[in-house]
Amino acid sequence: MGESVVISSRIRLARNLREYPFPCRLDEQGRLEVLEKIKKAVEGLSEEFIFVNMEDLPEYGAVSMVERHLISPEFAKPLAGRALAVSKDESISIMINEEDHLRIQVIKSGAALKEAYEIADKIDRELDAALSFAYDKKLGYLTQCPTNLGTGMRASFMMHLCALSESRTVQRIATNLTKLGFVIRGTYGEGSEYSGALYQISNQITLGISEESAIDNLMSICEQLSNSELQTREKLMESMEYQDRLSRSMGILMTARLISHQEAMRLLSNVRVGICEGIIEDISLNTIDKLMIIIQPASLMSIEGKKLTPQERDIARAKLIKNSLR
Amino acid sequence: MGESVVISSRIRLARNLREYPFPCRLDEQGRLEVLEKIKKAVEGLSEEFIFVNMEDLPEYGAVSMVERHLISPEFAKPLAGRALAVSKDESISIMINEEDHLRIQVIKSGAALKEAYEIADKIDRELDAALSFAYDKKLGYLTQCPTNLGTGMRASFMMHLCALSESRTVQRIATNLTKLGFVIRGTYGEGSEYSGALYQISNQITLGISEESAIDNLMSICEQLSNSELQTREKLMESMEYQDRLSRSMGILMTARLISHQEAMRLLSNVRVGICEGIIEDISLNTIDKLMIIIQPASLMSIEGKKLTPQERDIARAKLIKNSLR
Repeated sequence: MGESVVISSRIRLARNLREYPFPCRLDEQGRLEVLEKIKKAVEGLSEEFIFVNMEDLPEYGAVSMVERHLISPEFAKPLAGRALAVSKDESISIMINEEDHLRIQVIKSGAALKEAYEIADKIDRELDAALSFAYDKKLGYLTQCPTNLGTGMRASFMMHLCALSESRTVQRIATNLTKLGFVIRGTYGEGSEYSGALYQISNQITLGISEESAIDNLMSICEQLSNSELQTREKLMESMEYQDRLSRSMGILMTARLISHQEAMRLLSNVRVGICEGIIEDISLNTIDKLMIIIQPASLMSIEGKKLTPQERDIARAKLIKNSLR
Repeated sequence: MGESVVISSRIRLARNLREYPFPCRLDEQGRLEVLEKIKKAVEGLSEEFIFVNMEDLPEYGAVSMVERHLISPEFAKPLAGRALAVSKDESISIMINEEDHLRIQVIKSGAALKEAYEIADKIDRELDAALSFAYDKKLGYLTQCPTNLGTGMRASFMMHLCALSESRTVQRIATNLTKLGFVIRGTYGEGSEYSGALYQISNQITLGISEESAIDNLMSICEQLSNSELQTREKLMESMEYQDRLSRSMGILMTARLISHQEAMRLLSNVRVGICEGIIEDISLNTIDKLMIIIQPASLMSIEGKKLTPQERDIARAKLIKNSLR
């Protein structure tokens, strides 16, 4: 499983302090107390974290964190006692007082689910020693929502299923995966066009299964999907029209002076395949993957440090893309 | 009048030998006799000419000459006794045994109608001395078709009326020009899209007017059209969407792997305006003007030296454009 299909791997652990009710049953005072405790424990970790109070951010700053997958959309709403601890490279983030007291998240580039899990597991153990998590011998980790009960773990891959999306087989695959306890969904918006053919596939079962088995199962599904995507790409590449489309996407991205989010995602998706298939050179996949994140509306505004009108965003987006692809 | 609007200037003189009937009334023997006489006279000119027997060319070779404006479409049909004399740089061409015994043509880049006329006039005098042209004191030069009677001269400008075409004012202008004795028409095909917004404007009146007056009248019309085109471009350039379109056209041309003649003409037309308006750099207008000629189907086949299927042409066209724009 190469980077040509798997963009990133993510582990998220839901944890709660034994001595406190779940956040939804805490008042402001309670949330601040929980935050204080967790903050102290996080400061004691070997990894260095930056703390962000969600109340202190401009709206686009918070939304930009959603776009970068650092926080959940719910968490972007300002509330006293909500804070985010984030490592310098943003690969580790801990939401404090989201649905659960802690949501520990680790994202790694490419197919690196086990590595991501090891990092999350280490942080989990260190914090557990300091905070004492709510755990039941029979049920496992206790979480506010019963769907997280057990491992409290959600593992996921972000995959670029450009060819499967083009051949409209993603829908059929999604239905089959649901029966097996997995969920696949477009990362950005509903339409495949808007999404840039980025899909997130994750495990849904947390009860009665070990973390290792859950990860192994997801990895095997991901491998099958990867192979299927690569085969479909190979077939598409036999057509000159398809090669032409990929190549032109690069030309348009390098010369546009105005570009919408939707069009940019579609073109970046094409360029990504073009790089993998060797018809576009001198650009790294990493550059494209980064662009797919930072060209989102709130992230653009965060980079510019101010609110922008839709046309101003389209201009800023075109500039950002052109400069990155040079 | 700069090159930003006027691509080229053309003078064509229709002449006939006094002692022979018009070509349509000659048999093969007669045409060959006329050809022999003219050939000898042309060989005596100060300028060096290459002779091409239209019978010896493959079909695409002859059509390619039509595309390069060296000959008329009628002349491309093989017929014994038809030959073309062409100068090395192809700026001067003499069709022998077309509708008239001689059609002397001079094309110059940019707005250079007077220079073109001077060259044509010099050749005309030299050939007249050797061949003795059919001339009537009252009617002027005698030609097969009465519409050429008198000066036997057709003068024309090739103009890039991209903005006027976009704003759909060319139609209205064409109607007015007809009343004044001028004709304006799309150079390639009927639709403005297909033409790449290239228009040829020419005088229609040859009787009762001197060559000088005809040229002066045409130049003044051309200047008005030029100004109107430039003002309209300026207005269009106020829109970011228009600038975006021009800029993207360059990106697509540089990266396409397949491109139809129609699309290529539309994009080259945009790039031409982009260069004039300073938003596309490092490409000369001359490169674009040449491309507009050589990407035509028969010219492409002439370059490749063989017949090509439509898809092969689209591939060859994309390569040729990419290499020229690098």
